[in-house]
Amino acid sequence: MYFVLFGQMKKMLRQLDTWFEKATLNAKERGYDAEVLVSSRLAPDQLPLLAQVIIACDTAKLGASRLTGKAAPSHDDKEKTIAELRERVRSTLAYLDTFTEKDFESAATASITQPRWEGRTMTGADYFLEHTTPNFYFHINHTYAILRHNGVPVGKKDYLGALSQKPAPAPAAS
Amino acid sequence: MYFVLFGQMKKMLRQLDTWFEKATLNAKERGYDAEVLVSSRLAPDQLPLLAQVIIACDTAKLGASRLTGKAAPSHDDKEKTIAELRERVRSTLAYLDTFTEKDFESAATASITQPRWEGRTMTGADYFLEHTTPNFYFHINHTYAILRHNGVPVGKKDYLGALSQKPAPAPAAS
Repeated sequence: MYFVLFGQMKKMLRQLDTWFEKATLNAKERGYDAEVLVSSRLAPDQLPLLAQVIIACDTAKLGASRLTGKAAPSHDDKEKTIAELRERVRSTLAYLDTFTEKDFESAATASITQPRWEGRTMTGADYFLEHTTPNFYFHINHTYAILRHNGVPVGKKDYLGALSQKPAPAPAAS
Repeated sequence: MYFVLFGQMKKMLRQLDTWFEKATLNAKERGYDAEVLVSSRLAPDQLPLLAQVIIACDTAKLGASRLTGKAAPSHDDKEKTIAELRERVRSTLAYLDTFTEKDFESAATASITQPRWEGRTMTGADYFLEHTTPNFYFHINHTYAILRHNGVPVGKKDYLGALSQKPAPAPAAS
């Protein structure tokens, strides 16, 4: 189950990467420097696009690492440009690509903690459900919302990506 | 599994309801009519708060209904005020409260379609993973982002709600 759920997170990160393509193209068409988007925010006391992307990546990375005990690559958070943020996304995807279904065998019952919890713990199942998933979608969506607020022409198809749909049945011969 | 995942969606809808309490109180403190938030948007060609809340509710409602075959209550989408939106959330939660784990027994293999798919189908498992979950979090987060953009003092704790944490172990006696 967790392997499949992380597969969906990988898909969302790949979609996020395509938003930067649209943003860069749209900035060129409108005659502004796309890099101003990196420091854009929805509110003065909310994190800018830069941090939204980094935290989305780290929520997936640290979620997979904590659930499996598999060491995560360290990132020094020095990204400043769209190109560097896209590289961060690619690096996160490369790490997530190393996992197999077997890695998550004990994920549900793992005991999870992190420094700011001061010794409190969650089961892997609760952590993934109540913390990783909503946090991941929070930062993915705030990235999207900041771009959209700045007029980048992304829409629901760019957000969801391709769906695993089966074609409509052929009409019966008459 | 789906029963638990819908439990998390119910939690997010309960959290969303608390944001309206903060929004109403904050509007009073700042001396503006909280109802202006209902038509607020992040971009002129994006849906306002009103629609974000309604679609978040309907994504959960229709997701549960399609996965189980259990008829969903119909809503006439006539909400215009914060009080009516909160009633919509409560009505959606009341419907979701009627489900048991057993209702979702065949959910993963159910064949799902909707009018705009023109006969194409998805399995219940794919539909929930690729469509229901990301759409639900999209509209929950855009609701949050619109409020936050307008200065409503909501934060991560209001978003995530209480976590199922176990207390830190007691220090060893010395």
